[in-house]
Amino acid sequence: MSDIVSEFNAYRSKMNDKILSDNNKVIKRIFNLDTNAYAEGALDVKTKELLGLVASAVLRCDDCVKYHLETSYKEGLTKAEVVEALSIATLVGGTIVIPHLRRAYEFWDALEGQDASKE
Amino acid sequence: MSDIVSEFNAYRSKMNDKILSDNNKVIKRIFNLDTNAYAEGALDVKTKELLGLVASAVLRCDDCVKYHLETSYKEGLTKAEVVEALSIATLVGGTIVIPHLRRAYEFWDALEGQDASKE
Amino acid sequence: MSDIVSEFNAYRSKMNDKILSDNNKVIKRIFNLDTNAYAEGALDVKTKELLGLVASAVLRCDDCVKYHLETSYKEGLTKAEVVEALSIATLVGGTIVIPHLRRAYEFWDALEGQDASKE
Amino acid sequence: MSDIVSEFNAYRSKMNDKILSDNNKVIKRIFNLDTNAYAEGALDVKTKELLGLVASAVLRCDDCVKYHLETSYKEGLTKAEVVEALSIATLVGGTIVIPHLRRAYEFWDALEGQDASKE
Amino acid sequence: MSDIVSEFNAYRSKMNDKILSDNNKVIKRIFNLDTNAYAEGALDVKTKELLGLVASAVLRCDDCVKYHLETSYKEGLTKAEVVEALSIATLVGGTIVIPHLRRAYEFWDALEGQDASKE
Amino acid sequence: MSDIVSEFNAYRSKMNDKILSDNNKVIKRIFNLDTNAYAEGALDVKTKELLGLVASAVLRCDDCVKYHLETSYKEGLTKAEVVEALSIATLVGGTIVIPHLRRAYEFWDALEGQDASKE
Repeated sequence: MSDIVSEFNAYRSKMNDKILSDNNKVIKRIFNLDTNAYAEGALDVKTKELLGLVASAVLRCDDCVKYHLETSYKEGLTKAEVVEALSIATLVGGTIVIPHLRRAYEFWDALEGQDASKE
Repeated sequence: MSDIVSEFNAYRSKMNDKILSDNNKVIKRIFNLDTNAYAEGALDVKTKELLGLVASAVLRCDDCVKYHLETSYKEGLTKAEVVEALSIATLVGGTIVIPHLRRAYEFWDALEGQDASKE
Repeated sequence: MSDIVSEFNAYRSKMNDKILSDNNKVIKRIFNLDTNAYAEGALDVKTKELLGLVASAVLRCDDCVKYHLETSYKEGLTKAEVVEALSIATLVGGTIVIPHLRRAYEFWDALEGQDASKE
Repeated sequence: MSDIVSEFNAYRSKMNDKILSDNNKVIKRIFNLDTNAYAEGALDVKTKELLGLVASAVLRCDDCVKYHLETSYKEGLTKAEVVEALSIATLVGGTIVIPHLRRAYEFWDALEGQDASKE
Repeated sequence: MSDIVSEFNAYRSKMNDKILSDNNKVIKRIFNLDTNAYAEGALDVKTKELLGLVASAVLRCDDCVKYHLETSYKEGLTKAEVVEALSIATLVGGTIVIPHLRRAYEFWDALEGQDASKE
Repeated sequence: MSDIVSEFNAYRSKMNDKILSDNNKVIKRIFNLDTNAYAEGALDVKTKELLGLVASAVLRCDDCVKYHLETSYKEGLTKAEVVEALSIATLVGGTIVIPHLRRAYEFWDALEGQDASKE
């Protein structure tokens, strides 16, 4: 698997385990909400993933962007759809979003690359 | 028409005219992009409006939220869809988004109220 | 009761009722967490209120600052303690916090004034 | 004098007095620094005012923008110079800066209007 | 000593020396204030460290979080107290704080580990 | 050439090419504006670079700071001028700007170092 994808997931997963094993109720419930909020409801899962992606991008949280890129990719969103969402993020959030756009492109390429290498 | 909706639009429109008549090229182009970015493309207009709404909400820009609420309303998005988008914004952006949620609810009610009063 | 305190509470309470009656699960749980997070635990209630106040001040959320000022006041925190917490917020968050400091002072005075007028 | 200019200055001045009379050392020193930082040094006063203005605009602090607009106006900066600085702020900070741009234009007009009415 | 702790301190210390040797008065005074603001006053040192930690966490400044974690650790704050403070930061600042929470946990573990390895 | 300068430019340039080859119109126009906005107009190029630098610093975008540091350096701005601009950023943006100040100093030293090594 692509290095930047697997490294991101390994660290994220290891530290989430540490955090959750600590049993702070407020933090655990926020983690729980984070799973529930993106489930299908009035809006479908794909739309919600794009909402999470754009929120993460304008708030310039690289790890959150990576997480939503991977979920978007798994949900079958196309690169064109994801880039269009990120273009709105860049317009609303300004040119300070551009460095995060660079890393988002790199991560998306890694997501596509890991699939290509499996074939 | 509801007061908070018409007041918002009147001020917005008056000041936008002043800004655009000033002919600063960079600002004019940003205004232009703001119109183009939400046109149908890989994503449909409704989805893009929700993306603009969530970006505005997590960045806590009341006027931007109002603008996207009104466009969302005109595009036929339901309250349930809009609220679900705002719930993601509140989760990603934290409880500091709640005061903006209050004003968003008030503005949405005003949008619905102005239609009801026309009947 | 002082105008700015009662107006703040009336609007906050009216809109919170509207939001909660809408039954969006994610939003309701965030509101719930907001109540639980400030309950006594490893840290006492006073310390937690100051943490909420400082977080609100550096994120420049006037309504959140007002809410925590009122709770701090009710919990018996002194003005000197509250101001010292706000001084850290101003240092960490920079001079852009100063306008919020002005409104925080005004609100604290209103909180003290409403008690004085009851005597 | 124009209403929005005089109201802004009156409130700012009244609350600053309250804050400073409170004798919190950290806050007093930050207020002090705020005066010293814009004095002529390696950069001239006009340039520094524009730096303060752009910092305030991208951080979306209306009161800070107003303060630097007034000082810029008094230092003899032209509207074209101020608008060009604000265009950079809007590009770097994104379309969420636009509502603050509207209020900046309104305040600048009020600054010019108060002078015109004195003639 | 743990790598991430010693690397952080070495870089921080080297660059602070460079900055301070440059003799910019405004920057030097801000550095000075940063030392004074956390001294005992109306609030005790432990509370102030937690305020600095929460302010740093909601503003998502990893280096500032690390600094306050280390000082909190040296002042004898327990992990439960620190985590409770961070839970408030995560609630107020939203899920975008979570990646910083991961790195905070990692750094706290390193702080505990460096002590364990001395025994 | 200094490692941190050349690495920064290589990655920036490689990813910008990928982004621009994707032909998203909104993103391409924002990139275009980013070039035009810093051209001489009512304000000269040096002043505009400092405005871009301060906007980047208060918004805490390391890559944007690096970009404007390099352009400032090439335009002949002195270290004293750049540091004075950054001192205003640190005052307005607060102590959370300090970690970015450290990295800015390191990058400026690298810019000076790469020139020295060419002699």
